[in-house]
Amino acid sequence: MTVSINYETFLTKDPLDNYEDEAKYTKEWLPKVEKYRKDLADAIPKEYTTQLPQPIDQLIHDQFNAVDYLYKEKLLTPEEFAITDLSTVDLVGKIASGELTSVEVFKAYAHRAILAHQFTNCAQQIFIDEGLKQAEERDAYFKKHGKTVGPLHGVPISLKEQMNYAGKITHGGYVSKIVHIPENHGVSTGILEKLGAVFYVRTSQPQTLMHLDSGNSFTGFSKCPFNLLLSSGGSSSGEGSIVGFGGSAIGVGSDIGGSIRAPAAYSGCHGFRPTTRRISTKGGISSGAGQESVPAVVGPLARSIEDLDLWMKAYINEGKPWEHDAWAIPLPWREVGAPKISDLTIAVIRDDGLVRVTPPIRRGLDEVVNKLKQAGAKIIEFDPPNTKLAYDTVNKLYDCDGNYMQRKLLAESGEPLQKLTKWNLNYGDGAKEYTVSENRKLNVIRDQLRDEYNQYFIENKVDFILSPTYNNVAPHSAEVYNWSYTALWNILDLPTLAFQTGLYQDPTIDKWTEEELNYKYRSPLEQLENENYHEEQFIGAPIALQLTGRRYFDEEVVAAGKSIVDILGVDLFKH
Amino acid sequence: MTVSINYETFLTKDPLDNYEDEAKYTKEWLPKVEKYRKDLADAIPKEYTTQLPQPIDQLIHDQFNAVDYLYKEKLLTPEEFAITDLSTVDLVGKIASGELTSVEVFKAYAHRAILAHQFTNCAQQIFIDEGLKQAEERDAYFKKHGKTVGPLHGVPISLKEQMNYAGKITHGGYVSKIVHIPENHGVSTGILEKLGAVFYVRTSQPQTLMHLDSGNSFTGFSKCPFNLLLSSGGSSSGEGSIVGFGGSAIGVGSDIGGSIRAPAAYSGCHGFRPTTRRISTKGGISSGAGQESVPAVVGPLARSIEDLDLWMKAYINEGKPWEHDAWAIPLPWREVGAPKISDLTIAVIRDDGLVRVTPPIRRGLDEVVNKLKQAGAKIIEFDPPNTKLAYDTVNKLYDCDGNYMQRKLLAESGEPLQKLTKWNLNYGDGAKEYTVSENRKLNVIRDQLRDEYNQYFIENKVDFILSPTYNNVAPHSAEVYNWSYTALWNILDLPTLAFQTGLYQDPTIDKWTEEELNYKYRSPLEQLENENYHEEQFIGAPIALQLTGRRYFDEEVVAAGKSIVDILGVDLFKH
Repeated sequence: MTVSINYETFLTKDPLDNYEDEAKYTKEWLPKVEKYRKDLADAIPKEYTTQLPQPIDQLIHDQFNAVDYLYKEKLLTPEEFAITDLSTVDLVGKIASGELTSVEVFKAYAHRAILAHQFTNCAQQIFIDEGLKQAEERDAYFKKHGKTVGPLHGVPISLKEQMNYAGKITHGGYVSKIVHIPENHGVSTGILEKLGAVFYVRTSQPQTLMHLDSGNSFTGFSKCPFNLLLSSGGSSSGEGSIVGFGGSAIGVGSDIGGSIRAPAAYSGCHGFRPTTRRISTKGGISSGAGQESVPAVVGPLARSIEDLDLWMKAYINEGKPWEHDAWAIPLPWREVGAPKISDLTIAVIRDDGLVRVTPPIRRGLDEVVNKLKQAGAKIIEFDPPNTKLAYDTVNKLYDCDGNYMQRKLLAESGEPLQKLTKWNLNYGDGAKEYTVSENRKLNVIRDQLRDEYNQYFIENKVDFILSPTYNNVAPHSAEVYNWSYTALWNILDLPTLAFQTGLYQDPTIDKWTEEELNYKYRSPLEQLENENYHEEQFIGAPIALQLTGRRYFDEEVVAAGKSIVDILGVDLFKH
Repeated sequence: MTVSINYETFLTKDPLDNYEDEAKYTKEWLPKVEKYRKDLADAIPKEYTTQLPQPIDQLIHDQFNAVDYLYKEKLLTPEEFAITDLSTVDLVGKIASGELTSVEVFKAYAHRAILAHQFTNCAQQIFIDEGLKQAEERDAYFKKHGKTVGPLHGVPISLKEQMNYAGKITHGGYVSKIVHIPENHGVSTGILEKLGAVFYVRTSQPQTLMHLDSGNSFTGFSKCPFNLLLSSGGSSSGEGSIVGFGGSAIGVGSDIGGSIRAPAAYSGCHGFRPTTRRISTKGGISSGAGQESVPAVVGPLARSIEDLDLWMKAYINEGKPWEHDAWAIPLPWREVGAPKISDLTIAVIRDDGLVRVTPPIRRGLDEVVNKLKQAGAKIIEFDPPNTKLAYDTVNKLYDCDGNYMQRKLLAESGEPLQKLTKWNLNYGDGAKEYTVSENRKLNVIRDQLRDEYNQYFIENKVDFILSPTYNNVAPHSAEVYNWSYTALWNILDLPTLAFQTGLYQDPTIDKWTEEELNYKYRSPLEQLENENYHEEQFIGAPIALQLTGRRYFDEEVVAAGKSIVDILGVDLFKH
């Protein structure tokens, strides 16, 4: 019961002029990074690896589909496939009934996770032995007590590296934090462990955590398992890869501008960004400590919507985060049945007025809207208001400390800056630090936007808003410049599901039309993003959309997402 | 559906060097203020007034007890007493059964409100005719439909002036805002009206809203009805007076540092400060727009705890503030029964380490603790940690815009500064505006404090914390310097009830002991506050305490408050 802050020095700021320092980095930090990489390589159990059909660079160049390959070449045993292609809802049922042991579940997932890492470069730390020991303990408990330790008993869960893990380096994408070894788990990690989860892999994120991509100084880039040329997204980069590939039952990511939804969308799984203060973010690395204008949230990625629901319900109702983090609201997860599509009114955003979507996303929207209409949904075309104001404001709010904390954490090691770090450090007003008055005024604008969208829902009796997750399918690595489609829901703090449509990019049909090619761009950002799309370079990329509901009506969003995915016939466990 | 802000000019700050300007104020603003005062005087129906037994200045000097006088001299008819001394729970029952009409209820309260104003100077605006018309409409509705319009049908409710009221000046204690006439009600006013409330009086608050006292340029000071020499408290100053006197069934105040609890405590009623985001604060005057480090909350004052519960339940469950204000959380008000005292573990703060309490407060704590122990409660003596850090931090957080917005609103009229305005403008770091980084660091400290106290509850299985509301009973006007006892619960954002103990200052027993007189002060603030206490100057002042619970466990606090008040035998409707 102590607060260990020296109040006076805490408010004193270091000067910060230069934050890239090759000499310092090479001498003081690179050896630590190299050790970290070696530890990662050494932690890979040989027996779970496969001989890649080509060197990885060639596979990347060839837009290799690792998921297809996994099934075609039967890289797992039939039993391992059977286990890792169960929904987690079914998995916990079979464990609880004694039909499956935690150890056999764990081994199957561990095998698939190692394959995921070989193809997608998703991991930061792997600790199969520790996970196996945890699984054995779960089995011992079950044997002794005849019941599970909790609703996630024996579920192999992957964690974004940013989350504090007791006794393990936790760097959050900053080399300077390679010396940070927390004594205790972060709150969410601790809760999941108590609920019975088994941990074995911590996954990659970009430098600064502020890209919708994956590049970092530790391990480079993570990749989309359906096309290795493409980005896995970010900042929960490795979570997208590993869950999309099926290497963990449920992944845990965090999202301040799209960082759960982009990787889920790009990498071929579903991801849910809850409303703030339902899931604890306490205990982890971030440049945003004390930033509460647009708080980050923690949330799950999975291959089925009911698994997202299971995770949310177990975490909130049995994990009671408010007993560990005063920030969390004691708002129980409500059971709401999956609605009938014909009872729903859904507003559709086809364009946010900032960056036009590419042909596969356009097709995805068309097909989903058509199926929703066929199923009886009322569809309203929605031209979202003030998106430019919202996007400018959210970027200023992220960075209105003049990116001070990011620059400080970068400067400490002098690590080389990723291209997208440089891009992001120029967001907001770059290194210009705002005053409190300016921050407050931005908050007022944010609140007006929140009320405006809230009133849109209420006045038009709209249940949900359907929108693109991004203006494109998974982009090429280090080429993700726009996050207007995801960050809109962060500044509005609305619960949002990124869900797979079951459609994949097809170069034979997903082409710009002649008319689209003659389009007059509304901004350099739009031009940059749109000109990056050439249909032959995005083969097989998953097509995902977002479903957004009213603030704190998270349960309804997840439930409706299930209904929608069901009528679309999406089943990510089938190949 | 528009956001009417020019984004660029909104971030441009006016220079602000001097904010008191006698010439400008006298010429441009004073005539408006005088018109405002005249309108208030003209709005008082003669038939509801009484002949004061002495000029008001003499009554103030004589520490006149207006509540005693009201009963002794029978200033109301027996029927009016019967109505205005019903709990609101009973009142709405009798209206709903047809036993009482809204009009007869209204007239009785209007009469008592006018008397309250004569003695305590509680009102800013009075509009009996409009209230009567509203009451008549309620009766007409009831007659036509055979049911009430809502759970507060016909309840005369007083409103802190700060809250936007459609078509009426809403100044929030700033002369410069005398030109502000909102088109619409603020959200909470609108909700209460829809629930059936009847409005007829808007009440006083101090200049800047940032005193626990009442002094403003419009009407001067409001007074404690039990001793007119003393302050009614603030910033919901007039709400304390009018509810304490029984001139409204339920009052609505707001609280950022004690502004519901201090006036309730000083003026002889109960007041509840809910956790943030349960009751809407949208639509009103404040210097804190966009300040979300320590947000203000709106909450009720009443003469019984069950009336506070009624108001909270009706407002939240039927008012659904989240449909009108995206800031509000859709967290329903739960029905929790009043607990048995013997089931409770209560931690007691007798001293916060900053300012020693005066003899009547010491006696109140002793007596309440003894009765709780007799009733079987487990009592833990609690020395609250880090109160200095908490108090410094909360004062910095209020004022970390360098008081820019307060100074701006003052400078526009050049109105003379109240003594406590000058005091408050030097809080935090005065006119020094913080950077965003500094604000964020203060937020981090705040969150650590919140976790520390949250863990105290959890680890010690403490249900509630009992503490003084202030280091003294109601102080003399313009002599309220310390708010450490109330503001602690604001920075921690814990739901807190200020409740009457049924005890009143008694100059024959509430004296400093010899030992206490030889006390060595821990700070000039403590000395200033303690030296202001002379037992003969606080005769009959109500003795109130606070009960605090865990964040968002508002229902439990109110329910336990009822149990405690019951064993204390407090009945504020009886005289």
